[in-house]
Amino acid sequence: MTIPDQTVDESSDAVLLARRHRLLGRSAPLFYDTPLHIVSARDVWMYDAQGRAYLDAYNNVPVVGHCHPRVVTAIADQATRLNVHSRYLHETVLDYAERLTATFDAVLDMVILTCTGSEANDVALQIARQHTGGLGIVCTNQTYHGNTTAVRDLSTLFSDGESRSPLVRPVTFPNAYRPLRGLSGQALVDAHIEEIVEQIGAFKAASVKFAGMLACPIFANEGLPNVPEGYWPRVAQIVREAGGLLIFDEVQAGFGRTGHMWGQQRVGVVPDIVTLGKPMGNGYPIAGVVSRAELIEPFRDEVMYFNTFGATPVACAAALAVLDVIAGEALIDNARTTGQCLADGMRALQSRHPLIGDVRSQGLFLAVELVEDRETKAPAGRLAKLIVNDMKTRGVLISRVGQFDNILKIRPPLPFRPAHADHLLNTFDDCLTALKDAAR
Amino acid sequence: MTIPDQTVDESSDAVLLARRHRLLGRSAPLFYDTPLHIVSARDVWMYDAQGRAYLDAYNNVPVVGHCHPRVVTAIADQATRLNVHSRYLHETVLDYAERLTATFDAVLDMVILTCTGSEANDVALQIARQHTGGLGIVCTNQTYHGNTTAVRDLSTLFSDGESRSPLVRPVTFPNAYRPLRGLSGQALVDAHIEEIVEQIGAFKAASVKFAGMLACPIFANEGLPNVPEGYWPRVAQIVREAGGLLIFDEVQAGFGRTGHMWGQQRVGVVPDIVTLGKPMGNGYPIAGVVSRAELIEPFRDEVMYFNTFGATPVACAAALAVLDVIAGEALIDNARTTGQCLADGMRALQSRHPLIGDVRSQGLFLAVELVEDRETKAPAGRLAKLIVNDMKTRGVLISRVGQFDNILKIRPPLPFRPAHADHLLNTFDDCLTALKDAAR
Repeated sequence: MTIPDQTVDESSDAVLLARRHRLLGRSAPLFYDTPLHIVSARDVWMYDAQGRAYLDAYNNVPVVGHCHPRVVTAIADQATRLNVHSRYLHETVLDYAERLTATFDAVLDMVILTCTGSEANDVALQIARQHTGGLGIVCTNQTYHGNTTAVRDLSTLFSDGESRSPLVRPVTFPNAYRPLRGLSGQALVDAHIEEIVEQIGAFKAASVKFAGMLACPIFANEGLPNVPEGYWPRVAQIVREAGGLLIFDEVQAGFGRTGHMWGQQRVGVVPDIVTLGKPMGNGYPIAGVVSRAELIEPFRDEVMYFNTFGATPVACAAALAVLDVIAGEALIDNARTTGQCLADGMRALQSRHPLIGDVRSQGLFLAVELVEDRETKAPAGRLAKLIVNDMKTRGVLISRVGQFDNILKIRPPLPFRPAHADHLLNTFDDCLTALKDAAR
Repeated sequence: MTIPDQTVDESSDAVLLARRHRLLGRSAPLFYDTPLHIVSARDVWMYDAQGRAYLDAYNNVPVVGHCHPRVVTAIADQATRLNVHSRYLHETVLDYAERLTATFDAVLDMVILTCTGSEANDVALQIARQHTGGLGIVCTNQTYHGNTTAVRDLSTLFSDGESRSPLVRPVTFPNAYRPLRGLSGQALVDAHIEEIVEQIGAFKAASVKFAGMLACPIFANEGLPNVPEGYWPRVAQIVREAGGLLIFDEVQAGFGRTGHMWGQQRVGVVPDIVTLGKPMGNGYPIAGVVSRAELIEPFRDEVMYFNTFGATPVACAAALAVLDVIAGEALIDNARTTGQCLADGMRALQSRHPLIGDVRSQGLFLAVELVEDRETKAPAGRLAKLIVNDMKTRGVLISRVGQFDNILKIRPPLPFRPAHADHLLNTFDDCLTALKDAAR
């Protein structure tokens, strides 16, 4: 038996990290203090190079589970037959467009397929600006919508709540846990509406015509705040009265995540434009914009919009398989029921762990806000970081989010079952208990 | 034997077209007066719903041939194992980044992977603007670089050569066949350089700091003009002396098309930033930006640039397979030799068909400029349209391009062989002869 020479292990994590720094740059984002070297994944589990299993409670892109055989087969079969742009007729593209639009309110009946959520949001901005003849966009002050030049202006999470563009004005996102001026109920809604009205007025004062508001209906990047009752209908009314369009970014909220197909169905407001992305093809790149013909047709006319990879038979075959699996495996029901188990369990932990300041949930999306003190609500960002890394070491993958980076983000693939929820909760309990012991 | 009921054929082209208009919009672009209903493709052949074969002399995305088994296998194998974003370590992503950057001049050694060429150009603009602290971009006046808000400003082909943004100034693209003010040789180069200098000056006069110039090194969308000797080195010098960066959009020129791996190797100038796209994954969505660490690192730092679908193991496995096939099947040599056959054959046709005003070629990329009169060079746009449609009816797929839509664009997958070239040339000869007969 020969012993392999281990002096230079070309696939060691240190070697990979050095190559990565050299080829992609030191600032190419990586998760965890010690990055994970993931080599395979299936359902809600990911496996590293040493064969260690991690319960994935973070990734929303593999919405029907990592490497779902039905989606993989759809991709492989179609890639073997035809993978080409949409300037030829193809049934699969139309089948998908039909199935997709059927999941929305009847007025949202036309689609532009793109490749990424950033592109979808960029297109939505172009449509709103063309339709209104305005340029001014209202967004929230701790958000992220993507990375094109135009969409970056809306990504206020990386700029302390400010926008770098005179065409974008941020407003405070609604947050019942840390409410604006300590208000609650109707008064809190009024205060938020007032801010939007003020920013629309500020556009007018600066001679920038108002084009609309773009936001995530569940404020996923803001940390899934509890939104005061009546907020969204009032916002929709105010935005439209001012001549603007309401754009919902459903990139994170969509495809069953919240226990509804779309976040807008949860909040009970039909927007003018919807943007879609990440989970749409379970990892195969596809994204899109859904709206009405009166908005989409003039845009297509003017811009001759075309996206080479946006509506290929392969992308649509993958996306169709995703819709099939969501329905066939009743994943929206599961998001609701398992999400409830997870939320209940987390609230039980909250009663024993004072670090847990607030637990918010919408289907299989949990935000667990950590605070140093429940009275002052001082954000426990440093501890959140420690916990995310410790949970990884314990084999459970979560992340954190929000203005103070103190909100644990739990957003697993939708085939996450009650047993997985128990595993996560037990691991989290162990992690918090160990933390307490260490602090003694 | 039962005769199937044909009264409602759900898959008939008319039904598909009506569904398409309803779901995607009437202006969603389609090729040909009577659209093709393509259901499969292999190598350089595409097949419609009736089983009719078409020689594909248009599509550059399937650069190694439609549905190349090696690429399909790479996609299927990796999609079965892991398809996730790049915030974990993964060898395939780094292997690809290494193989890709090795094909460029040594100074271009770092990469940002994106999903589409539009995104790549948008990122390139962001990098150039951040690095220089300027916003002003020079582009050419009959071009297309993509569809994001920022990149649209550079896509002058749809706006009569004008840009709608004060941050973008177009210059006349070089074109030895229709030269600026009838000039030639060094005087023509001088005139183009003068225009660029003027536009840089106009930026200065408008207090817009100059950031650089973005162009395709072979001016693919402009119609593959013959560029006067010495143009590019002079442009690079002028742009850099003015404090700007030179960005080459290699989305069409790259991956062996011209008989060189990159268009920049053909024109002999190393740019500061390169953008890549379409053929990179043979249809699997992947694109990118290649540049130097000193430009990429500060951009990543500031923007926290991240692209969910941009550097997945599946995208990189597909792209690696493309590089393998380009090398393994000697497709760059084939682009050169078959491209030469095609160009020689086209020039032979030119001697018999006065409609062919100019034949320009770079590897397997041919531009055939049709004119009503060789003296006046009046563009024959209407005839070009007729010919593109007639060639389709005869089973050969080409397109047209350029300011006057009078330039036939022949840009097949790279496994296009001399026999395919002969077939195309014979079909084209028949088509032109029939046209002549019809005109008699």
